[in-house]
Amino acid sequence: MSVYTNIEQQELETFLKQYSLGALLSYEGINAGIENTNYFITTENGEFVLTIFEELKAEALPYYLTFMAHLSDHGMPTAHPIADLQGDYVRVLKDKPAAIVRRLEGQNVLEPTSEHCTTVGHALAQMHVVGESFSGALANPRDIAWSEKTAQRVLAQLSDEDQQLLKNEIQYRKQPLASNLPQGIIHADLFRDNVMFMGQTLTGIIDFYYACNDYLLYDLAVTVNDWCSLETGTLNMDSYTALLNAYCAEREFQPQEIEAWEYMLRAAALRFWLSRLQDKIFPKDGEITHTKDPNIFKNILQSRINDVPSLNP
Amino acid sequence: MSVYTNIEQQELETFLKQYSLGALLSYEGINAGIENTNYFITTENGEFVLTIFEELKAEALPYYLTFMAHLSDHGMPTAHPIADLQGDYVRVLKDKPAAIVRRLEGQNVLEPTSEHCTTVGHALAQMHVVGESFSGALANPRDIAWSEKTAQRVLAQLSDEDQQLLKNEIQYRKQPLASNLPQGIIHADLFRDNVMFMGQTLTGIIDFYYACNDYLLYDLAVTVNDWCSLETGTLNMDSYTALLNAYCAEREFQPQEIEAWEYMLRAAALRFWLSRLQDKIFPKDGEITHTKDPNIFKNILQSRINDVPSLNP
Repeated sequence: MSVYTNIEQQELETFLKQYSLGALLSYEGINAGIENTNYFITTENGEFVLTIFEELKAEALPYYLTFMAHLSDHGMPTAHPIADLQGDYVRVLKDKPAAIVRRLEGQNVLEPTSEHCTTVGHALAQMHVVGESFSGALANPRDIAWSEKTAQRVLAQLSDEDQQLLKNEIQYRKQPLASNLPQGIIHADLFRDNVMFMGQTLTGIIDFYYACNDYLLYDLAVTVNDWCSLETGTLNMDSYTALLNAYCAEREFQPQEIEAWEYMLRAAALRFWLSRLQDKIFPKDGEITHTKDPNIFKNILQSRINDVPSLNP
Repeated sequence: MSVYTNIEQQELETFLKQYSLGALLSYEGINAGIENTNYFITTENGEFVLTIFEELKAEALPYYLTFMAHLSDHGMPTAHPIADLQGDYVRVLKDKPAAIVRRLEGQNVLEPTSEHCTTVGHALAQMHVVGESFSGALANPRDIAWSEKTAQRVLAQLSDEDQQLLKNEIQYRKQPLASNLPQGIIHADLFRDNVMFMGQTLTGIIDFYYACNDYLLYDLAVTVNDWCSLETGTLNMDSYTALLNAYCAEREFQPQEIEAWEYMLRAAALRFWLSRLQDKIFPKDGEITHTKDPNIFKNILQSRINDVPSLNP
């Protein structure tokens, strides 16, 4: 989708009176984002992003926003949310929760080099390490129950072959895992379009609205599947080696993680195959964005089943 | 002074292991600052300033640093301090307290236009408004007792005329003030060299190491004396009108403040005349900076005595 909620200049000026950002100089809608309305706003105090949350419940927002603040406070390249004059990060705008964060510089890199993957591997591990001192907790809404429910919803629309693949993966997803797999707060959606670079420098990690507490290794699997897959779904081994080496330089893997790696790669591929199938088969009202292609993640899933890479590259 | 405490690359790399800023790429000493050692440091995560506190006691640092964080959290152009992996802003480096903050862009404007003064007036008032929700408290170390003590220390070195001026002002400084003058956290040193601009945009307010709880009007007087004085000490009325109009657009003056304005302007001029006299007469060991000229503030003081400007320009 692009901008969902339309804001008039006067409304925005009134809204900004609750902050200490100085006068509004300009604003424009951002043509990106699946579940929120975003505006770039420029005030006397600088450049910011206003997000109006179209679907997310206000209850979960403090978790996302305080985690963004926590990472930024530790020097990570994340957008710090802006507190209003009462000290709150979340306000209401047009009857919807809304927040302002600092705008970060940089551009997405859609064809990353191994060097970019090294940087992303470092940053992801840093996020996991810094997350250890974050006290918030939120279960992953895209859990096994969600996978099963979503699979039921989309199954009838799939080819026989895809139905079989989906059923197999749901079954595979239910296997018990080692109880001591490291957990923590994860980004859960660290795709290329959520990371910004200026040249080789990572300048922004954005969109924390899937962050949750789950296996750290699952977060790595989500990241690897997006950053290190060729169009066919198979791994680009140079990117893969670069990302993993960088990650484990900051956080060493434990033996039970090496065991669970195939599971995590397949679970991560399944989650995005399912959400994309759902978005395609049941588009939301008013959605004007291009739907993302589910087959990319079917291919990634099949590739991970056929050719399991080692966690120690 | 310029860099006081010398840091080797290896020491800095070891120090940075307590943070999550990625690898050190480069660092250089900053030839500025009166009481601290500062280094620009560049890591994989961006550009930062490392400050080693040569004189400030570690006890007061959390007050300064959490206030900087508070302002930055509210969208003010102040440097956010970086928390270490334990969540602390202050660490020890070479047996001295040290902290890392984000580096801000921009340059000092030593010959400000009225437009710059408008921007500074807005920013100072915003700082006072945002400070209302800050819970820390610290008395002003440059209070009347300090003024008296410092006057005693420097008096014998002054001409008869300057001695008389100083004695008069100490006496004037002791008069009782209205008990309901608005107080709050103030910067207390918002000189031109502590504000950075890019063009007409204020991009950085720095050096919060004189921040304290005191009269808001005193902070305005400190700011006006530096930003709006001609070389002779007399006011540039265009700058003065611009700064005051901008300030009172964000925070209205109260009648007792209008009464106290002459007092605040003279107290603010006295404080910097005294500290500069002290720095000149009793230079610190190892100090290699140029001492700032005390006479500038003697002239400002005399000008404020002779020609009291209105707080409602």
